[in-house]
Amino acid sequence: MARRLLAAGDRAMSRHLAPRIAILNPNTTLAFTQRLGESAEDIVAAGTIVVARSPVAGVPSVECHVDEALAIPGLLRLVQEEEKLGTAAYVIACFGDTGIEAVREIAVGPVVGMTEAALFAAAMLAAQFTVITLPPRTIVQAERVVRHIGLGHRCTVRAIDVNVDDCVAPDESLLEAMLAASCKAIAEDGAEAIVLGCAGLSALVGPMSVALGVPVIEGVSVAVKMAEGLVAARLRTSKIRSYGFPPRLPDSGDP
Amino acid sequence: MARRLLAAGDRAMSRHLAPRIAILNPNTTLAFTQRLGESAEDIVAAGTIVVARSPVAGVPSVECHVDEALAIPGLLRLVQEEEKLGTAAYVIACFGDTGIEAVREIAVGPVVGMTEAALFAAAMLAAQFTVITLPPRTIVQAERVVRHIGLGHRCTVRAIDVNVDDCVAPDESLLEAMLAASCKAIAEDGAEAIVLGCAGLSALVGPMSVALGVPVIEGVSVAVKMAEGLVAARLRTSKIRSYGFPPRLPDSGDP
Amino acid sequence: MARRLLAAGDRAMSRHLAPRIAILNPNTTLAFTQRLGESAEDIVAAGTIVVARSPVAGVPSVECHVDEALAIPGLLRLVQEEEKLGTAAYVIACFGDTGIEAVREIAVGPVVGMTEAALFAAAMLAAQFTVITLPPRTIVQAERVVRHIGLGHRCTVRAIDVNVDDCVAPDESLLEAMLAASCKAIAEDGAEAIVLGCAGLSALVGPMSVALGVPVIEGVSVAVKMAEGLVAARLRTSKIRSYGFPPRLPDSGDP
Amino acid sequence: MARRLLAAGDRAMSRHLAPRIAILNPNTTLAFTQRLGESAEDIVAAGTIVVARSPVAGVPSVECHVDEALAIPGLLRLVQEEEKLGTAAYVIACFGDTGIEAVREIAVGPVVGMTEAALFAAAMLAAQFTVITLPPRTIVQAERVVRHIGLGHRCTVRAIDVNVDDCVAPDESLLEAMLAASCKAIAEDGAEAIVLGCAGLSALVGPMSVALGVPVIEGVSVAVKMAEGLVAARLRTSKIRSYGFPPRLPDSGDP
Amino acid sequence: MARRLLAAGDRAMSRHLAPRIAILNPNTTLAFTQRLGESAEDIVAAGTIVVARSPVAGVPSVECHVDEALAIPGLLRLVQEEEKLGTAAYVIACFGDTGIEAVREIAVGPVVGMTEAALFAAAMLAAQFTVITLPPRTIVQAERVVRHIGLGHRCTVRAIDVNVDDCVAPDESLLEAMLAASCKAIAEDGAEAIVLGCAGLSALVGPMSVALGVPVIEGVSVAVKMAEGLVAARLRTSKIRSYGFPPRLPDSGDP
Amino acid sequence: MARRLLAAGDRAMSRHLAPRIAILNPNTTLAFTQRLGESAEDIVAAGTIVVARSPVAGVPSVECHVDEALAIPGLLRLVQEEEKLGTAAYVIACFGDTGIEAVREIAVGPVVGMTEAALFAAAMLAAQFTVITLPPRTIVQAERVVRHIGLGHRCTVRAIDVNVDDCVAPDESLLEAMLAASCKAIAEDGAEAIVLGCAGLSALVGPMSVALGVPVIEGVSVAVKMAEGLVAARLRTSKIRSYGFPPRLPDSGDP
Repeated sequence: MARRLLAAGDRAMSRHLAPRIAILNPNTTLAFTQRLGESAEDIVAAGTIVVARSPVAGVPSVECHVDEALAIPGLLRLVQEEEKLGTAAYVIACFGDTGIEAVREIAVGPVVGMTEAALFAAAMLAAQFTVITLPPRTIVQAERVVRHIGLGHRCTVRAIDVNVDDCVAPDESLLEAMLAASCKAIAEDGAEAIVLGCAGLSALVGPMSVALGVPVIEGVSVAVKMAEGLVAARLRTSKIRSYGFPPRLPDSGDP
Repeated sequence: MARRLLAAGDRAMSRHLAPRIAILNPNTTLAFTQRLGESAEDIVAAGTIVVARSPVAGVPSVECHVDEALAIPGLLRLVQEEEKLGTAAYVIACFGDTGIEAVREIAVGPVVGMTEAALFAAAMLAAQFTVITLPPRTIVQAERVVRHIGLGHRCTVRAIDVNVDDCVAPDESLLEAMLAASCKAIAEDGAEAIVLGCAGLSALVGPMSVALGVPVIEGVSVAVKMAEGLVAARLRTSKIRSYGFPPRLPDSGDP
Repeated sequence: MARRLLAAGDRAMSRHLAPRIAILNPNTTLAFTQRLGESAEDIVAAGTIVVARSPVAGVPSVECHVDEALAIPGLLRLVQEEEKLGTAAYVIACFGDTGIEAVREIAVGPVVGMTEAALFAAAMLAAQFTVITLPPRTIVQAERVVRHIGLGHRCTVRAIDVNVDDCVAPDESLLEAMLAASCKAIAEDGAEAIVLGCAGLSALVGPMSVALGVPVIEGVSVAVKMAEGLVAARLRTSKIRSYGFPPRLPDSGDP
Repeated sequence: MARRLLAAGDRAMSRHLAPRIAILNPNTTLAFTQRLGESAEDIVAAGTIVVARSPVAGVPSVECHVDEALAIPGLLRLVQEEEKLGTAAYVIACFGDTGIEAVREIAVGPVVGMTEAALFAAAMLAAQFTVITLPPRTIVQAERVVRHIGLGHRCTVRAIDVNVDDCVAPDESLLEAMLAASCKAIAEDGAEAIVLGCAGLSALVGPMSVALGVPVIEGVSVAVKMAEGLVAARLRTSKIRSYGFPPRLPDSGDP
Repeated sequence: MARRLLAAGDRAMSRHLAPRIAILNPNTTLAFTQRLGESAEDIVAAGTIVVARSPVAGVPSVECHVDEALAIPGLLRLVQEEEKLGTAAYVIACFGDTGIEAVREIAVGPVVGMTEAALFAAAMLAAQFTVITLPPRTIVQAERVVRHIGLGHRCTVRAIDVNVDDCVAPDESLLEAMLAASCKAIAEDGAEAIVLGCAGLSALVGPMSVALGVPVIEGVSVAVKMAEGLVAARLRTSKIRSYGFPPRLPDSGDP
Repeated sequence: MARRLLAAGDRAMSRHLAPRIAILNPNTTLAFTQRLGESAEDIVAAGTIVVARSPVAGVPSVECHVDEALAIPGLLRLVQEEEKLGTAAYVIACFGDTGIEAVREIAVGPVVGMTEAALFAAAMLAAQFTVITLPPRTIVQAERVVRHIGLGHRCTVRAIDVNVDDCVAPDESLLEAMLAASCKAIAEDGAEAIVLGCAGLSALVGPMSVALGVPVIEGVSVAVKMAEGLVAARLRTSKIRSYGFPPRLPDSGDP
């Protein structure tokens, strides 16, 4: 154990010089992963290395609890590989923050979920806000995060009846559905900001912001910046109880 | 999809005649699984078939989020096999109700977690109660269930510093540790009942009840009886949104 | 006091051999009570003795707080009589779980409310659900139970404008009103299961389940099975603080 | 029904001229009732008529749910009598606000519970406060009120191991027990005010305030003044849903 | 400090003989202030001196957080002046209870907010109720108070699109807007009472009560009576932690 | 109004090129302000301009509600000046996030409180954590923020008995007091991270982290990075309801 901590300390040295941030897309749709990486490169500070990765095997999209269960083992293997590279921080790029607690157990650096990051951002920009997720069955995943971070008194969750697959290349009808749901959120829930409930809808941020006149928050970019910020502040995941290193790791069955 | 529902309907016929209840132990420690099955047989009604099963591969015990992540895929494969047998209901025999939402998506019949069952039982027997879990890092898993079912205003969670492995054959020192924690719960938290925070501690129920003079609740047995009751009431898992059949299943990658 | 406990211990012997479960209908409408008993007999395990009883005097239906106040003393006298018979467990067969805390003080065995049982069942079958109670003034009683067990974040309460009297013989118009309210609950509240907010609507379970395609939960049958399960698990009401034996009993004014 | 409302309107005329406030002591201990009346007379405004009454039959003290159940019917009969006298408002003088919802259904004017009044007063005088109730089994009754009015985030409940009977004539040892519990509340719970958890401890207010240096709140006097204030503001109990007139009344069985 | 407490003690002598209650209107609109004073005089007991005051400088109405920030320093200077006069209690006559915590730090006697008083009154008259505030941007201020006192489970907040200025002389269209919002609250939120979300709407209480058939609560009058009641009960603001005398005062910069 | 929005739009152009972030220290202690600025310069990205400013007049430290009230008007004047410079974002550098809602009304860009930022960071690094604030009377301010962002179920607040003045130059005894309180938090509250409850304790982060072995979070640096991140993501404060531009501004009394 002392050894592990030492090693962790050594790697941490390099964590702050040119920090590497890994964006973890829990699904295997590489077009999607590539887009996440490109968006992130536009936003990180000079000197930050950002990579976007997908598991080798798993599911093409994460739309339910079974999908989450099938995606997480591959996700954890990615984290093990990244830890060997001294990766400074992680971003979970899937609405619902799939597998985030397990990733935190393996990671030395901070792990930021796109959902929690988006909700925290919304809470700093607006008194009341709404998540628009998709498809409707994922409402329960969004609410899981809302409840975990406790913003339920200021946040409602709505859904549009569209599958995640249809978000790989968002079109006009997706935009319209999102706008319609957002308008209802503003009128009926008192929403003052909108959180996009799916990774990779960054193309909608511009048109939706203009049309609605309220902040429209895409979680991955916010999460990348929060991860960068936590690294800059030299903060890491707490290892004393809930997120301590696990007794067993995915590849070996023993640490 | 129509086909699936039809098939589900057909199997349901047999679900009530001699209902089969599968106790799912998410870990691979078979001595433990066998004991769960034997305890359950003592408590089920005549005519109920009860089986206790473990995944073929996975982890020997579930003590953290990574363990949960590694255990769930194997658990889901068990459920797929059981569904083909027309299994009437499931019990998740792991404190923290590992993977319960994903199991609910695959299952037609009711799925009862040992944690939620124990907490519901406690809520019917006492105004205030305490979970004694182990080791301390699993407090967060226990609290996840407490928060999900909303009993946090009447329930505290405490832990003893013992590993799950040490519960396979509970000895005097484990009993003493549990009693000491329970006494603190009664004196400091106002606990009027104790929930055992680990499957397979059924051997402690008797001595702890006598020593403490309060109800001591072991979740697996209560969960088996609740599962039996839901089957008798002809109730099944709702399939219209959160727990609808998943788009993809573990073995095939496609339904 | 030692004497009392000894006596309680003696009676407990017989509690598990052929356990007697008493369904307590707090109102005096015997046709209703009889129906409750018949439904329960269909669902209990072989060997369980089930009786349904009403107070000798009180109110013909329980629709408000005054009704509750007038019903409870008679209910407690029933419990005193049953305790002398060594009754193993009780079910409160009135939505709102009228008088349940007072019954728990007198009873040695478990006491299960039909409302809490129905809500617990719903929480195991669906992520979100709705109670349909009647008449509207009883919403506050339903919410009292929801808040006590803490499921308010997953449960809404709706009402139809029908009196309890009209439920003694449920007809088409009652079914239609319940279906209309349920459809609103599914569409507007995201309900995935429906809890019937009145005892004795068991005749509606079948047609409503078929029409709605979601679990429809009638609390008395679920409560009877939960009571049976708690008895099988040898659990009893905690006697150390909130539900300790009362200093005074209904008939004598002194224990 | 039109008739009833008219009658209510007529009586209301007289409610504001020389308003009669009835303090309802749910127990039958007349020495206690008399003391409540005398204390109230010292505090009401000139012109207010205040009476303190006990049920003819019931229990000598209210210490548990069974006591509450046995006390409420007699309490409701008092309210029926008072309503015929055009009583302007009621105070429930029992910690736990025994029967308050049922009283509200019968009463036209406001009904103020000593517990809720004390908690509201505390919330206006201190950011955090503690109820000291007795005996320990009544903690659950105090928490019932705290939860109903929602002040749980600012209020803790503690108990001393003394019976209600011992409060009829509070002595030194009672004072010492209350002071000891209060000091713990101030040091450990951050209490900035103390709420006395039993009616008729008004004799302790002076010595405890001096000894502790924080506000010590006795609920009956505060409740009487709040009732007087609501009458002066011409406010009455809402009759449109939860507290509408009941379909049946205690004495007749039919309104 | 000893000196201060002594002085406070001396002044307190006079606080109960002919208590002076100061109604603090945080805005500088004197017509409004005068009306508040007149309404209060109609309701206080004989012997109570009531004054209504406005800051010398500040804002003409309080409609947002900036307004609050600009109003509070002047408000605190009023309290300093009043303290020298031995004022017995204060009422904050602005919806949102502007500056109430700071006032409590300076004041010896009780400080009652019109918002909290109105909500407490509503909670004693109805199981569920609704605040109608104005303009919509002040919903967040109303919710701040609701959350602080914890009544969110029984209270909704709605707004009408009218500015505070339009309430100085309430006309027909304001009445209509308030009635329309109230009817929605009764139908959709289950409101059984209405709280007016702006000081000085007392002229609407009569017509709204008649039109709606539910209690309509204007907070200033209720607050004045609660303040009077707390003074009569000889209660004062707790000085041991959160509301202790401040290290610095507005006029001098040093106590 | 159209004019204002246009102007806002123009200034926004420049907000992203070399964004200016203003750290607002609500107190007038310039040594403190200077230190905040220096710390921030170490952490911002190349290209970010960071300034730390104090109000011209106000209070030397913020330790209570009166201090807050006296500090906020000067704070708002700073924001007005900064807005004319096209400042991209603000950080409130005072525990309790003094005046943050009012600042949000005036600001176009994001406004980040050091308290909320620290709590959000803690929530991403640990399952449970503790704020150590000072002096004890500021617990209520810390809890105000905790409640506003809803993390109360995962966060406790403790205090040490030290004045803010003693933090300008933190010494050994302050470190020891903080360590002692942190150890209690870890042992008794299950804290896995510590949040420093006062701006300018950044010198303690290093020694406390080493001594405790858990993340120690200083809010100002985290807030600066979050503000930078929100600017990079081109997000601004929502202007449609709660944080809309105010009708009146500090210097002119009219916008």
